[in-house]
Amino acid sequence: MVKPIENVAIFGGTHGNEMTGIYLVKKFLKNPHLLERKTLKVFPFLSNPKAIELSVRYTEIDLNRCFALEDIENLDNILYEQLLAKTIHQKLRNNQINFLIDIHSTTSAMGLTIILSDQNDFHLKLCSYLSLIYPELKILYYDSPEKNKLLRSNTDLGLTLEVGAIPQGVLEADLLMKTEQVIYSLLDYLDKYNQNKIEKKSHNLFIYEVFERIDYPRKEEEITAMIHPNLQSKDYQPINFGDPLFMTFEGETINYKGDSTVYPVFINESAYYEKGIAMCLTRRQEMTVNLG
Amino acid sequence: MVKPIENVAIFGGTHGNEMTGIYLVKKFLKNPHLLERKTLKVFPFLSNPKAIELSVRYTEIDLNRCFALEDIENLDNILYEQLLAKTIHQKLRNNQINFLIDIHSTTSAMGLTIILSDQNDFHLKLCSYLSLIYPELKILYYDSPEKNKLLRSNTDLGLTLEVGAIPQGVLEADLLMKTEQVIYSLLDYLDKYNQNKIEKKSHNLFIYEVFERIDYPRKEEEITAMIHPNLQSKDYQPINFGDPLFMTFEGETINYKGDSTVYPVFINESAYYEKGIAMCLTRRQEMTVNLG
Repeated sequence: MVKPIENVAIFGGTHGNEMTGIYLVKKFLKNPHLLERKTLKVFPFLSNPKAIELSVRYTEIDLNRCFALEDIENLDNILYEQLLAKTIHQKLRNNQINFLIDIHSTTSAMGLTIILSDQNDFHLKLCSYLSLIYPELKILYYDSPEKNKLLRSNTDLGLTLEVGAIPQGVLEADLLMKTEQVIYSLLDYLDKYNQNKIEKKSHNLFIYEVFERIDYPRKEEEITAMIHPNLQSKDYQPINFGDPLFMTFEGETINYKGDSTVYPVFINESAYYEKGIAMCLTRRQEMTVNLG
Repeated sequence: MVKPIENVAIFGGTHGNEMTGIYLVKKFLKNPHLLERKTLKVFPFLSNPKAIELSVRYTEIDLNRCFALEDIENLDNILYEQLLAKTIHQKLRNNQINFLIDIHSTTSAMGLTIILSDQNDFHLKLCSYLSLIYPELKILYYDSPEKNKLLRSNTDLGLTLEVGAIPQGVLEADLLMKTEQVIYSLLDYLDKYNQNKIEKKSHNLFIYEVFERIDYPRKEEEITAMIHPNLQSKDYQPINFGDPLFMTFEGETINYKGDSTVYPVFINESAYYEKGIAMCLTRRQEMTVNLG
């Protein structure tokens, strides 16, 4: 049983060229009444103002890989984002933040996605509540090797809101407004939770679990094939043995060779070229969650 | 009457995060036979290898604004891209380039677009020839204040191939393959032209002429409204008095106030936020072009 949530942080601009979170947080900073809930204190933050100013993902190192506790405590870590991570970590402690939303956008067609580093009961209920209001919302469970380095790892109950497809440096009105609504509903949930006012309900929740990351085909580092046109923008849609994954620059198709049905996500995310990720493969689980 | 075209240059990576041109030029460099035509010498170039390496539009100043002759000749211009422009200009002279294609991509949904700085007879015939093969191809006449600063201004017959929507830093297979085909057809045309082998034909050509650029609504520099959801991805579609252009962060709609039908392009182009351009308004002309 999770104790009442008292202090919530909402971050935008953890990557300085992902405009959705940046402009939502700017709106919240100007209009704090939008975040007011009876039992909550909500703190909006712009994570990386320097990267935001330059409209780049980061200036020296990806801020969203700088939050491992050993890195925070390492006094030799003095790249700009490493230093920034230390102050963000301290701010979160000083404000006793026990819930955190980090807003990101992606060039992949992932719609509205909540990303979780673990599947605890609290998160599953929250996601079920939101899925009932927003049936298009997807839940991605991503127990990645980097999970302890992420901003959301600063609290046990941190989560990422990932929306797309949106090019870097671009405001997309429709997805921005939807993201805003999800945040309000999420705060409503926390407020109701604190007051023990969640309505009893049962919900079948789908969770997409990342189990593998696939790089682009390469020859001596250089990419030799692109995401296949049939797969482009098809995040969360099932693929099976023999379905096309990539197309080489010579027009040859490279197919999926796995046996089971999988659901790719983060297909053709711009920032993942440098990380060697063309897509993440997920398996879909279904579970019954009892709310209230 | 234009003299035979002998030496053609094809540029990719004038902006280092526009991957379509970069990977096409890399393919051409590896497979020079793809560009071989009886009467042509074709030179593929990667314009800005340093920006390509970093996957950024430019490192110090937009290369595609550095080609004005007075800037090329100014020995005090020593920013990286200014220096680069001087060597590119010299290379083009040394190779006696008399036709030039500069491949760009955009986050706007502009499909396949040829951009011209002027409407000379040679270009109109070439565009008609290509439109007959690729009916979806759009012709944009953009007599912009910066036209003398563009890479394409290095020859009288330079043109830009602009394809989208593609996020920066992303390869989009379908548009890449279409762009490649247009380039081959364009070279075919030049080769036929040199041999006086263009078939006689009449064609109704549509040309979209940029006459105004509109910025995002701002308050003290800060953007106060986004492209309206109804206008997003609607490049080249007509709008009239009262049609929505922008939506404020508070959800209010800002409408188009002009009297005549216009066709917006470069709607929500990522790189144009810093240039103060939310879209370019065009008028559509129709003209009959006689080929051959």
